[in-house]
Amino acid sequence: MSVNDGVAPDFSRGLAAAVVQDADSGEVLMVAYMDQEAWARTLETRRAWFHSRKRGLWEKGATSGNYLDVVEVRLDCDRDAVLLRVRARGPACHTGARSCFDAGGANQQDESGPVPAEGPVAGSG
Amino acid sequence: MSVNDGVAPDFSRGLAAAVVQDADSGEVLMVAYMDQEAWARTLETRRAWFHSRKRGLWEKGATSGNYLDVVEVRLDCDRDAVLLRVRARGPACHTGARSCFDAGGANQQDESGPVPAEGPVAGSG
Repeated sequence: MSVNDGVAPDFSRGLAAAVVQDADSGEVLMVAYMDQEAWARTLETRRAWFHSRKRGLWEKGATSGNYLDVVEVRLDCDRDAVLLRVRARGPACHTGARSCFDAGGANQQDESGPVPAEGPVAGSG
Repeated sequence: MSVNDGVAPDFSRGLAAAVVQDADSGEVLMVAYMDQEAWARTLETRRAWFHSRKRGLWEKGATSGNYLDVVEVRLDCDRDAVLLRVRARGPACHTGARSCFDAGGANQQDESGPVPAEGPVAGSG
C-alpha cells in the first residue's frame, strides 16, 4: 500500500467511520471507528486497527487470530469515512458469522425472504 | 421489503452508521447516519433517508434527483450499524462521482497504483 503524502482522514470532528469490505467478494463485513493512532497503525502494519470508546486502540484479530489483511484503503469525499478492502483470515464477526451483517436475527429482507445465517464458528471475535 | 416486527437499530447510544452499497455491483457508495426518524422514513418509502447534525433529516436525492432505491436493509450484530443495499438513480456523491469513495484526490492504493477517478457529473448532490 502506497500512501499519498499527507492524505489522511479529517479527525478534527471526531472518529472516522471505517467500513470493512471483502476485497474479493465485495461483501461488507463490519463497521468500526478509527482515530489517528488506529489509522497510522493500519497503514504501518497493513492490518486493520480500530478505536472504540470502550476498548481504546484495538487490532482486529489480536485475540481471535482473525486478522484483516488490508489490500486497499480509500477515503470518502469529505475524509470522514474510510473504506478498508481486506482479506479476512476468519470470520469478521465476534458471533462467528463471516460478516457482522450476516449474524442472524436482526435482519430485514426484501420479498425473497431471509438469507440463511451462518452458524457460530469457534474461535472468532 | 418486509420488516421483522420490532427489529430496529439501537439508537440509545446515538446515531447509527449507515453504509450504502450498490445491490448489483457491491460497490460501497457512501456512509451516512440515521436516527429513528430517518430509519422509519427509509422503511416506509423504500428510499434512503439520513440524519446529519447540520441538515437534520434529509432524503438522498431530494434536491438532485439521485435517489437511492432500497433493495435490502440489514443490521449488524450489535444493531448500531445499518447496511442499505440500493439501486442508485445517479451518482451517489455530491462531487458527481458514482461513489463517495471514488471522488478522487484522497485515496490510498496498493502497489497497483491509483484507480482512475471519475470526472464530475452535473446535477449530483
